Formats: sequence, structure tokens, C-alpha cells
Amino acid sequence: MSTGQNERVNRQVLLKKVPTGISGPDDFEVKESVLAPLGDGEVLVESHYFGVDAALRLIVRDSDEFLFRVRPGDIVRGSAAGRVVESNNPMFSVGDHVLASGGVQNFIVSNGDGMETVDVTQAPLGAWLGGFGVSGLTAYFAVTEECKPQPGQTVLINGAAGAVGSIAGQLCKLAGATVIGLTGSAEKCLWLVEELGYDIAINYKDDNWYEQLADAAPERLDVIFDNVGGSILDESMRLIGMHGVVLLCGSTSQYTEEEMTGPSNYIWLGTMRARMQGFVIFDYAHRYPEARARMAKWIKDGRLKIPSYEVVGDVDIFPEAFQQLYEGKNLGKMLLKLPAAD
Amino acid sequence: MSTGQNERVNRQVLLKKVPTGISGPDDFEVKESVLAPLGDGEVLVESHYFGVDAALRLIVRDSDEFLFRVRPGDIVRGSAAGRVVESNNPMFSVGDHVLASGGVQNFIVSNGDGMETVDVTQAPLGAWLGGFGVSGLTAYFAVTEECKPQPGQTVLINGAAGAVGSIAGQLCKLAGATVIGLTGSAEKCLWLVEELGYDIAINYKDDNWYEQLADAAPERLDVIFDNVGGSILDESMRLIGMHGVVLLCGSTSQYTEEEMTGPSNYIWLGTMRARMQGFVIFDYAHRYPEARARMAKWIKDGRLKIPSYEVVGDVDIFPEAFQQLYEGKNLGKMLLKLPAAD
Repeated sequence: MSTGQNERVNRQVLLKKVPTGISGPDDFEVKESVLAPLGDGEVLVESHYFGVDAALRLIVRDSDEFLFRVRPGDIVRGSAAGRVVESNNPMFSVGDHVLASGGVQNFIVSNGDGMETVDVTQAPLGAWLGGFGVSGLTAYFAVTEECKPQPGQTVLINGAAGAVGSIAGQLCKLAGATVIGLTGSAEKCLWLVEELGYDIAINYKDDNWYEQLADAAPERLDVIFDNVGGSILDESMRLIGMHGVVLLCGSTSQYTEEEMTGPSNYIWLGTMRARMQGFVIFDYAHRYPEARARMAKWIKDGRLKIPSYEVVGDVDIFPEAFQQLYEGKNLGKMLLKLPAAD
Repeated sequence: MSTGQNERVNRQVLLKKVPTGISGPDDFEVKESVLAPLGDGEVLVESHYFGVDAALRLIVRDSDEFLFRVRPGDIVRGSAAGRVVESNNPMFSVGDHVLASGGVQNFIVSNGDGMETVDVTQAPLGAWLGGFGVSGLTAYFAVTEECKPQPGQTVLINGAAGAVGSIAGQLCKLAGATVIGLTGSAEKCLWLVEELGYDIAINYKDDNWYEQLADAAPERLDVIFDNVGGSILDESMRLIGMHGVVLLCGSTSQYTEEEMTGPSNYIWLGTMRARMQGFVIFDYAHRYPEARARMAKWIKDGRLKIPSYEVVGDVDIFPEAFQQLYEGKNLGKMLLKLPAAD
């Protein structure tokens, strides 16, 4: 039976209206309520971290094209890392660290389905939403199973300083490839080369970024690891190499657009016998433990860094953090760190 | 030594100016000249047939993006099937039937490089430019090696009544797949189903063609064999199925455009773990004899038809034939048949 007699106030972030362009605080609202006592079989999780994910922008669009959708009035979808504070479920004990997908709120009531306990001795709690979570696992399986870069090959990472790109580039380096990163500021370029070991980083806001890229890849590109879509994907495809692969990992530049733009240079796939490959991380779910074990070893050996960018505050600053993500403020995975985490 | 004492008049089709939109007769001109005596090692071929190929429109563009380019004043590139009428080359004898790529003209002078003798007992001379030539071989290797349709799968052929599509659809039927064709007239739809055995044919000029397609493929599409690009490729990609392949075989709809348009629905490749695959027929050159032997057997058994659409006239009607190709007049491969063929 529940022992939750102390009254807990929960704050939830709801979508207020369908955003246009980059979404801002006006597109969201916070709803406060008192939690009801926990029911049979239920678990109460206090949220410590939320992953701030670009893909959210896609599912708040006024479109039924995607599997998930958040409509005005709905709680904003988001993955939390937190701690169990009450439990009427034998699978979870108070104090367990868990991942839960109950939306952006201080407390998540769950029947335990889809909840996962995590080992914070393997990686700190926040990392389980980033490098040890879907972002890092996406980078891992996309690189090791889909792109398979070889020593001597040249890889381009579009969106190189983001949650996935920042790990993917390092994994391509570990595989022996030359790694070029495209990102949105001189500061990020410096960080990619000095902190993450990229061979070359190019600021796509430079007028001549394409020329810089062509110079950096005289033998063309064996892999384009694309997280951004739009004109950057399109232009970079002119440099795809023979039997190359363009891995579609995300299209962040397009998530804010009413109409998506396709890459007109797809015709280069023909000339170069190349392929554009779709990929869904959940197909590899049964292999997450193996990936985490390898990454943990590389981290321990100093060969892999799991960068995260923490925005600190309560759930009500989630909309601002999300706006900052689209403004490119983050180096690596953006996390919202709640007061409960301290 | 040459015995060419009789004076031969040659007429060549030259590009006059860079076309805009569908090219017409005004974009070309005919130049007449008297042939010089044949030099040592040279062969004189009289042209009987020319393949009228959509890709020509691509290389007359004002762009250096492609391997080949035809500029104003240049002879129009084209593959001829003809007969050797004089030879100073021990590799070729008068009377040999050959393929030669000397451009659109009545007579081709060649040193023999790249010329190929053909066996007209295996297939008639014109067929060596169509079903037995690059178009048919493209269909053959694209289907058998790149798409590999399986019994029970559903294949869409975009540009189904064209030179490649008309063969590709039949080969997919032979592989046991359900085959849907998209084409540009009710007459062609009837022809695809009644003559070539397509399961379903849809006229993309119908306002509701996409709904017809979605109804025809309730389990989505395992293969999209694309010859046309543009909005048809884009819309059809919304129906790509799990682990599907979009084979890029051509983009005829885009060859007349100043700016190519990419498929904005490429994002569906992600969701469906599908790939968009480039392909170049010349990679299979060493296997052409094997493909022709198999196709000859299927033709003999009545299981494969090699459709061609002959426009009859001298080289000066080549521009009109080319215009008709872009107007969609042809069923199968369009050939220009010259008076010398009779």
C-alpha cells in the first residue's frame, strides 16, 4: 500500500499552441497540481534530468505523419532520469535510479512499463539520457553497424557538435577514419578538434564552407553522417564518394519548417553508386548492454568523451532550454538538470 | 587501303543552342558534308538506328556537372546500330552489324575503339539499342542485382512504359512480385497490363493517382524503381515499406529543369529503415553476355517482350523524335529508324 501521505506538488510542461519556426516559451505553459495517492502496482519517480531532444520539434508539428504527436494541451514528451521515491511495485524500490518516459514534469507516476533501472556506477545518471542513452547508442550502432567506416576513409559528420554527432565523430576516429565535422560556430569548431579529436571542423556559417569541405576531402566522402538535413545535407551530397553511404540520422534543420526540403543532389547517389540509408535505433535494443559496456571501457581508457551541456533549473525552464538547443547553444547532449538532482 | 571512291554525303545533327524546357527542332541543326577517304585502320559505319535517350537532355544543359557534355556546335551524342560499309581495320569486315557511339549522323568514321559487333540472329539490330542494349541491361541488373524483388513483395515502377521501365516491370513479374506501374496515359496503362502483364497500372495525370497507389499497395512498397524523379518519386516515397529500396535509375522529369528538386519525403527512409540506392550499368559490363543469353531465352519462351517504338525518317527528324520522347509518345524504347535500315 502507498505510504505517500505527504502532499507533493507536481508541475507539468504542456504544449500551449503549435509553434511556428523555432519554438519559444510562449508555445508552452506550466500546470501545477497535487499528486493523488499512489495506486496498486504504481511507482512514483522524482525527475532529476530531462534530455532536451531536437526531435520534439517534429512531433509538436500540426501533422499526423509521425508515430508520436503532442497536441496543444498535451504534456510535452520527454525522457527523464530520476529516482524512485515511492513504490507499490515489487520491481522497483525506493532509491532506485531509473529512466522513465512520462513527459516533462517533476513527478512521474508509472505502472513500471517501459521503465528501466540504471547503474549509476557505470555512468552518472544524466549520461543515461545522453551518451549512455538513445543519443550515444544511436551514434554507436549507426557507426559500427550502418556506416562501418574503414581506416583511410573520410567521414563527414553534419551536426558534429550535437548529442549524436559529438559521439559519432569520436567513434569514427576510433575506427581509423579521417573525420570532418560541420557545425555552427568557431567555438564549436575549436572544441571538436581540441576536445574530441576531429581532424577538421568547418563552420557552416562561413560563406565558403562548401569550398573548405571540398578542399578537406580531395578524395570525396565515404560516409556522410547526417543529423541536420536541408541545404547542408544537399550540398555535402555533391561530394559523396564511390559506393559511399549517406546515413540519415536526423533532420534537425527541417523540424522547424512547414514543408521539408529534399536533397536535390540525390542524383549524385546514382553517379557514385552510393546509398542513402535510413536507420532506427530501436532495432538494436537487444544490444544496448553490449554497446554500453564497450563505451564504458573506452571512457575508462580515455578514448571516448561523453559531452553534455547542462541547463540548470526547474521544469518551467524547459521551453527556454529547448529554444537554446535550436539556437545551437549546446556542446554535446543538452540536459535539463532539476533541483532534485542535487 | 580504302576503296571508298564513290562520294558519300553525311548529315550530322548538331546542337544549335542550349534548350529551355522540352527541347524542340529549333534547338538543333543539320550539317551536311562529303566524307573524306577512309584512313588507315579506320572503319566506316552506315547508321541504321539511333536510340532516342532521355539522358541526352541532361548533357545538353548548361552545366559541367556530368561526365559528358554536348555544347552548341557539337554533334549530338547518340548510340547507333548500323552496318560496316568500308573497313581498313582487320577487326571489322564489310557487312558486319555493329554498335557505334559516333553521334547522330548517317556515317560514322571510327578507329574501332568502343565499337562492338552484334549477332542479329540473337535479336534484331534495333533491339541492340533497346532491350538488348543499355536500356534492357539496366533493367536486368537493376532488378536482379540491386532490387532483388521476392515473391509476395510489391514493386512500383515509376516511368513504367519507358525503355527501362517496360522491361524492369516484366522482370519483377518473372521474380514473382506484384508489379504496379505509374505512367502518363490511359492508353499506356492498358498496354502495361494487357501486353506486359503488370498487375496494376496508374495514370499519374489522374488527380487521385496517389490515392490509387496507396490503395494498390496496402502493405506498402518493397521496391520503388524510379526512372523519373521529381514529384512522382517524392510522393511515392511516402509509401516505401520496411527495409525497402528506392532504386535510382533515372530522373527524366528533372532533365528539363534548371534546378533539380530533391524528394522531401526522403525522411521516410529513416522511419522505414529503407535505402535509396544509386546504380551505374557499366559496372556490370563483364556480365552483359550472360544477361543477354537469359533474356533471349525468356523472349523465345514468350515470357519477356522487348517493346520498341520506331520513328521512321532520316537523321534530320531526330530532334522531333526527341521532343516526342519528352511528350511521352513512346511505348518502350524509342528508336529512330533511318532509310538505310530497309
